[in-house]
Amino acid sequence: MSFTRESWPIAAALHQFSHPSVQDASVDVWLDTLRQVASVGFASIDLTDSWVRIGDLTPERFADFQQTLSSAGMDAPALSITRRSVIDPLTGDDNLAYTHRTVDAAAALGTGVLSLGLHRPLTVEQKKQLWFWNAKSDGDPIEDFDAWELAVTRFREIGNHAADYGMQVSLEMYEDTFLGSADSAVRLINDIDLPNVGLNPDIGNIVRMHREIEDWRDMLAKTLPYTNYWQVKNYYRDEDAATGSIFTAPAPLMLGFINYREAVRDALALGFQGVICCEHYGGDGLAVSGLNADYLRTLLPATSQETRA
Amino acid sequence: MSFTRESWPIAAALHQFSHPSVQDASVDVWLDTLRQVASVGFASIDLTDSWVRIGDLTPERFADFQQTLSSAGMDAPALSITRRSVIDPLTGDDNLAYTHRTVDAAAALGTGVLSLGLHRPLTVEQKKQLWFWNAKSDGDPIEDFDAWELAVTRFREIGNHAADYGMQVSLEMYEDTFLGSADSAVRLINDIDLPNVGLNPDIGNIVRMHREIEDWRDMLAKTLPYTNYWQVKNYYRDEDAATGSIFTAPAPLMLGFINYREAVRDALALGFQGVICCEHYGGDGLAVSGLNADYLRTLLPATSQETRA
Amino acid sequence: MSFTRESWPIAAALHQFSHPSVQDASVDVWLDTLRQVASVGFASIDLTDSWVRIGDLTPERFADFQQTLSSAGMDAPALSITRRSVIDPLTGDDNLAYTHRTVDAAAALGTGVLSLGLHRPLTVEQKKQLWFWNAKSDGDPIEDFDAWELAVTRFREIGNHAADYGMQVSLEMYEDTFLGSADSAVRLINDIDLPNVGLNPDIGNIVRMHREIEDWRDMLAKTLPYTNYWQVKNYYRDEDAATGSIFTAPAPLMLGFINYREAVRDALALGFQGVICCEHYGGDGLAVSGLNADYLRTLLPATSQETRA
Repeated sequence: MSFTRESWPIAAALHQFSHPSVQDASVDVWLDTLRQVASVGFASIDLTDSWVRIGDLTPERFADFQQTLSSAGMDAPALSITRRSVIDPLTGDDNLAYTHRTVDAAAALGTGVLSLGLHRPLTVEQKKQLWFWNAKSDGDPIEDFDAWELAVTRFREIGNHAADYGMQVSLEMYEDTFLGSADSAVRLINDIDLPNVGLNPDIGNIVRMHREIEDWRDMLAKTLPYTNYWQVKNYYRDEDAATGSIFTAPAPLMLGFINYREAVRDALALGFQGVICCEHYGGDGLAVSGLNADYLRTLLPATSQETRA
Repeated sequence: MSFTRESWPIAAALHQFSHPSVQDASVDVWLDTLRQVASVGFASIDLTDSWVRIGDLTPERFADFQQTLSSAGMDAPALSITRRSVIDPLTGDDNLAYTHRTVDAAAALGTGVLSLGLHRPLTVEQKKQLWFWNAKSDGDPIEDFDAWELAVTRFREIGNHAADYGMQVSLEMYEDTFLGSADSAVRLINDIDLPNVGLNPDIGNIVRMHREIEDWRDMLAKTLPYTNYWQVKNYYRDEDAATGSIFTAPAPLMLGFINYREAVRDALALGFQGVICCEHYGGDGLAVSGLNADYLRTLLPATSQETRA
Repeated sequence: MSFTRESWPIAAALHQFSHPSVQDASVDVWLDTLRQVASVGFASIDLTDSWVRIGDLTPERFADFQQTLSSAGMDAPALSITRRSVIDPLTGDDNLAYTHRTVDAAAALGTGVLSLGLHRPLTVEQKKQLWFWNAKSDGDPIEDFDAWELAVTRFREIGNHAADYGMQVSLEMYEDTFLGSADSAVRLINDIDLPNVGLNPDIGNIVRMHREIEDWRDMLAKTLPYTNYWQVKNYYRDEDAATGSIFTAPAPLMLGFINYREAVRDALALGFQGVICCEHYGGDGLAVSGLNADYLRTLLPATSQETRA
């Protein structure tokens, strides 16, 4: 049975609620956030670890978390670990251990897909910007074969661990990393070569940058065949030829530069059946995510037969 | 009887579905597109010839097209010929012949208005841009009296042909052509001097450019008295005085730079009763067009008496 | 009893309808505008004096105005005097007298809050811009103690007059004036030191500027404790580090740069119970204001108990 527009799991990201104090906050704080998320129409979250790191909760607190999620009428079909690269020269070993702990916790929560990336913590320069993506990221040593092999080995190790639980692992496209272009991302998936490790073609990360970008249609054409999870977001974008200045700004899915009608159609034609996650930076990202979910459902199949057409 | 907000013909443009293969595609491909258009609320299309050129269909294929349109519950009150200038030094003669063929085909389909322009095929430089309007268009030789006279003569010839069917001809404002400013567009209409040849004040074409622009209120004040068809679209726009950079981006009608509440009111006060066409470039142009149509209906008269007030 | 999302007074600003002829126009013109405002869902206006100056109406015309407002089913819980600084070296005395007349007229109309500012008439340079805020404002002599004292004295005088009617006075944040930064605005309120004189943290005025801006969260953290009226508007904003160019454009509340979900929550937590006014420049500002009001109501308390939680 394939999903319909009614049953398709569409999750809200929780960036807007990230704060160092949330990890140790009372369940009331968690519940309040989850109720806000529910109030804009979501029944699912992407359990973003910048909000709560379930891999770092004590068993008691984990039980509290599970109970709170259930009280709010929410599930967590996906979990995102962000800025904890397993090949970071300083913290890669810790990040790997943390990722393994998180796989176990996610499995206990019934989460079916874990989203990982190679992006590093924000630099000082990024934190000074109006939008962090307006400065260059710390990234991967693009020509370094050993680093590439370490990424392959560690993602394969995590993929195997996840497979024990029937869990998917999805790698997020992100600039200045081995997952920064469509070709490199696909090559990494092919090198890892596990059936449960695929891509999260979050190309909003790419098209918002103040530099020359890959064509969004090309990126999706290459990555959709490997997609097992999909964080969607959109941006306005213009380039002023006379001065070389570029502007971008977060936009609702329907209004931005990427045509998600076409993108979703192409994904469905390839048999995509994964969780979709609505992310939006700036302004009231939660409310925009709610709009985006409503819009996405208009693009999804009305009946379960349609997806196999 | 004048139109009401319910009955006013509002058509969807079909740019998002343009592809060289569509002309020779099976009727299933046509039907699929028309059903998508219907799904966002439209019952009418502007039969954009970058999608299908009905003037170039065989009689059998034309009958198929007519049947498909009807199966989808759609009509085509307007037809746009784009980038086929009848004064193009290379292709003007061919374009004129094509336009005559299209008048005949459009009449057979029951189309009441034909939209034409003087804009040329996209240049190599335009195709390299993120948005084609960010580079200069190939245009008309603005001081060339013979070219002007040729435009007048050929548009008059087409106008007379269209008049045989009771069809309107509407000339689209477009930069770098004889229809590139309000004054020049009005002068051209006055020189053609036929009751069924008027203007399509598609000023979205003008306000999106990265150069100094005419004031939108001035353009509409001059052109609305001659308007017999109206392609509406809107843009965000800002100008950075310190660096001279300009940015624009496609916006829903309600949100962009032009105030369509005021524009529609002014048009109605002048007795405008023509077809309106929703066009939107970038992103999910079809869904945005659907939003735009809903918004436009809130601005149109609730009852047919009101328009004559 | 505290307001609920249903009962909270949310008023429309009337900038889009400002025209020198409106002051002396027939009541039909006023009524037509008020009906347009009602048609997008408002039951209240901010009686913007760039539309009608009730302090300058004859008693007969004032009675007409009152009657027209009532015919349209509207009230005016707030009134804004704009660009009539009481410390303008040329017109300050006149502006003070005008403000006093307006207090009396507003009281007769049942208006509970008067919004004032120190912003000056638009400069020639501002009028040349696409958006007037893209050029520098004429402003206050920031280091001039006498000017500051005059502002304190005159606002106190107006505050005392307003207090006779139980009316609030709210001072609007505006660049290049004593109300141009959060710190200066708060200092001014503290110097005036009257219980009925507070702030209108209209930070949209600040974040749209093409220059370095204060962080919106910082501005609200400082000013919300003093807020007794709130004009809300939002903007897209980006900064291009490579060229130094900045772009901003008016955005619906939900979509712009400021997170109004967070802002409204913080205001409610501080016990804010004032009138909210939706302002939007560019495009169909009235329709966008209607959208904004609908969005705001989703952020306001469902029941009157909630606000005191």
